Amino acid sequence: MATGAYNPQYGAAFTTGSHPAEADPPVTRLLARYVVGSQPSDIPEPVRKEAIRSVLNWVGCAVGGSNHETVDCALAALSEFSGPPQATVLGRSERLDIFHAALLNGISSHVLDYDDTHLKTIIHPAGPVASALLALAERRPTSGVDFLHAFILGVEVECRIGRAVYPAHYDAGWHITGTAGIFGAAAATGKLLGLTEQQMTWALGTAATQASGLREMFGSMCKSLHVGRAAQNGLAAAILASRNFTSSERGIEAPRAFAYVLSPARNFAAISDGLGKTFEISENTYKPFPCGIVIHPVIDGCLQLRYQHDLKAGQIEHISLKVHPLVLELTGKKTPGSGLEGKFSVYHSAAVAIIRGAAGLKEFSDEVVRDPAVIALRDRVMAATDPAVREEEAYIIIRLKDGKAVEKHVEHAVGSLERPMSDADLADKFRGLAGGILPAQQQEKLIRLCRSVESLKDVAPIARASAR
Amino acid sequence: MATGAYNPQYGAAFTTGSHPAEADPPVTRLLARYVVGSQPSDIPEPVRKEAIRSVLNWVGCAVGGSNHETVDCALAALSEFSGPPQATVLGRSERLDIFHAALLNGISSHVLDYDDTHLKTIIHPAGPVASALLALAERRPTSGVDFLHAFILGVEVECRIGRAVYPAHYDAGWHITGTAGIFGAAAATGKLLGLTEQQMTWALGTAATQASGLREMFGSMCKSLHVGRAAQNGLAAAILASRNFTSSERGIEAPRAFAYVLSPARNFAAISDGLGKTFEISENTYKPFPCGIVIHPVIDGCLQLRYQHDLKAGQIEHISLKVHPLVLELTGKKTPGSGLEGKFSVYHSAAVAIIRGAAGLKEFSDEVVRDPAVIALRDRVMAATDPAVREEEAYIIIRLKDGKAVEKHVEHAVGSLERPMSDADLADKFRGLAGGILPAQQQEKLIRLCRSVESLKDVAPIARASAR
Repeated sequence: MATGAYNPQYGAAFTTGSHPAEADPPVTRLLARYVVGSQPSDIPEPVRKEAIRSVLNWVGCAVGGSNHETVDCALAALSEFSGPPQATVLGRSERLDIFHAALLNGISSHVLDYDDTHLKTIIHPAGPVASALLALAERRPTSGVDFLHAFILGVEVECRIGRAVYPAHYDAGWHITGTAGIFGAAAATGKLLGLTEQQMTWALGTAATQASGLREMFGSMCKSLHVGRAAQNGLAAAILASRNFTSSERGIEAPRAFAYVLSPARNFAAISDGLGKTFEISENTYKPFPCGIVIHPVIDGCLQLRYQHDLKAGQIEHISLKVHPLVLELTGKKTPGSGLEGKFSVYHSAAVAIIRGAAGLKEFSDEVVRDPAVIALRDRVMAATDPAVREEEAYIIIRLKDGKAVEKHVEHAVGSLERPMSDADLADKFRGLAGGILPAQQQEKLIRLCRSVESLKDVAPIARASAR
Repeated sequence: MATGAYNPQYGAAFTTGSHPAEADPPVTRLLARYVVGSQPSDIPEPVRKEAIRSVLNWVGCAVGGSNHETVDCALAALSEFSGPPQATVLGRSERLDIFHAALLNGISSHVLDYDDTHLKTIIHPAGPVASALLALAERRPTSGVDFLHAFILGVEVECRIGRAVYPAHYDAGWHITGTAGIFGAAAATGKLLGLTEQQMTWALGTAATQASGLREMFGSMCKSLHVGRAAQNGLAAAILASRNFTSSERGIEAPRAFAYVLSPARNFAAISDGLGKTFEISENTYKPFPCGIVIHPVIDGCLQLRYQHDLKAGQIEHISLKVHPLVLELTGKKTPGSGLEGKFSVYHSAAVAIIRGAAGLKEFSDEVVRDPAVIALRDRVMAATDPAVREEEAYIIIRLKDGKAVEKHVEHAVGSLERPMSDADLADKFRGLAGGILPAQQQEKLIRLCRSVESLKDVAPIARASAR
């Protein structure tokens, strides 16, 4: 590997600069060989369990986002150009060719900012990989075992490539879920297609040369387009490779390839170390609340106090929060006027958690954010910052009108790696997302199908049960 | 504009570094406003004439490349996912949805490395723009005047954005025909779709966030995939914008947007200066020979000597060349074994020009490169380098067996801006490309249709006449 001077910004393992001092290790081929050679039996049971949780969370997010205007808009623009109805748009009645289905499901699963997070890289791993994989699986009958295996491998490739360039690549302005996600989509679908090592190497190269997505687009519809295109173009890379469409064989590590052109620093050991022994999906996390992760400790604490003490808004004199400075920097809106603004208000979030005992999609709707009862309590929320408070923690004191006070110190919010959402939490989140889109019975069927994916002879019923 | 220190590598107008010192000019909106407001009557006649030459050259290259294995391979992989037969794959019998047609025509028009070149940026301008535009025009009846106007505007946007980041962007490893081409495709097709200024701004932003293509892929099939994807995804950007799919409004100039994330230096004045007054397509050039541009002066000189003196190989003792060192560095293969290797051999090129009086596609086929008569003369070609010889020039001395010698000093090869190919040259090049793919009568019809494009009520017949 090229050895660079120690760079304190990225850590000793990273090399910086635009050209390698000597030949870098052939990590593209290494990943290809690993993916092609891996067997389902190589994957430990806890890893498979976490993958099942990721798939369930992804289906929920895609169904929940399926009636968002971004999805409506993309469908209105693109439907007339779609090929045969080969695959399902989750949560909807349309069926499209597998490329367009992958695109649309990638968009819908990300559009609510409610999808999973690999905290080491802030990649949202499932979107690009599962959107490509399920679309292909509707075209090529695929067992649940093979589906889950390919999904785990796709996430592995995506997150390892992400780790090799994070944070320099993200800091440079790239939306890493798009740029790393395309590799995951290519690897996963390439595994289903039974690519040879040579073809898989080409698929990863063809993914590398289509990697795109700028952080400048955050706040616009293009943010979720990135996830859709990663799924679609990664899938295309694998399908092209299956016909021997060639690319460079060093699409990641060559001097004019991905890790150099799209990143000012890189650490190829993150790709190779422990490959096949550790699994990135084990570190996947799921948001319990559809808003910025920095408010989660406050919401968690308010919900706990509310249920422990059966609190009503009328009893409360005021709520005092002590949080890390970043919380107010990112979510300091005192008087949010819309559902979207509510997601950027720690004041609204605390108030709504007490009043409604929940902080789901409805609690961040225009209607609830403008509810006079919520506003009345929101205006009695005070927040102080203290750099000594960690980002993951929050101190909450609720002063009651009767002179008493109740307190909570949250060290890690629910949904963090330290306090993961339980399977029951995830099912509740799923119901919150699918509610109003799919009938209750269909929701329960989908939860059952996802949980039992490893026993399915064909995973297509998951897609079909997600359709309206 | 952000003002940076003078950077001798890129010139005084360029700023370097990853963040602007102050707000950069809103060039994305500026380009959008220009494209939306431009009228066909704003375009001077010589500019329109050059555009017609570019279109003819593009059709020829796409037809000529249409039976290349890269195209076969892409079609084999992707056809089953295509939408309705909305548009023509030039040179072939398949009809695909407009996105796939744009992709395939982009691939085929670049795959022979025989397309046009904007020398200031080494962008191959027509491929991304015309491939997207003609596909859309088959779906939405479009007059020749509107087609040519949109084509000129697309090339303008593409080449100005290219100039704003060249050479830093190219040096960093980006294949600029892909990355700048997508903007041209979006602008041209957005013009046909009648986008508003706001929509066009979004279309350019949506193009920016999909820009991709790595130079590492040169030598593989992915090189021409870049041109196809630029056409396809630029077209999609315009169609999405027509349905109000939003992006950043500063997709080019914002700190986390195209000109910063994909380039270590930029010069926004190249986008704004003279916009609407000068036209980049006026500087477009066409290759007379399907090989690296550095050998062109030698081929040109050998062809001139051959015809002036009616030379036969048997008369020749040896051929002495004096060329710029880059010529041997790039094309110094003494004993090429295949057609592709022949393109990287100045020795083969000189010999074949004398023996066959031509240097077209056939002269770089396996058969001709392995022809014993060609090899016999090739082995009597000697080349010396001299840094005092410019890249554009060549000195040729042919020593005859009768003791005489003939000489030629080529200052600028045919095809250069100084000695452009004539309309007749371009028609001959077209025939060379389409020969063996389309019948002679159909070739002549296509040449006529392209030349008279401004009188066509509908340009779709150009596409239909290109089909097999």
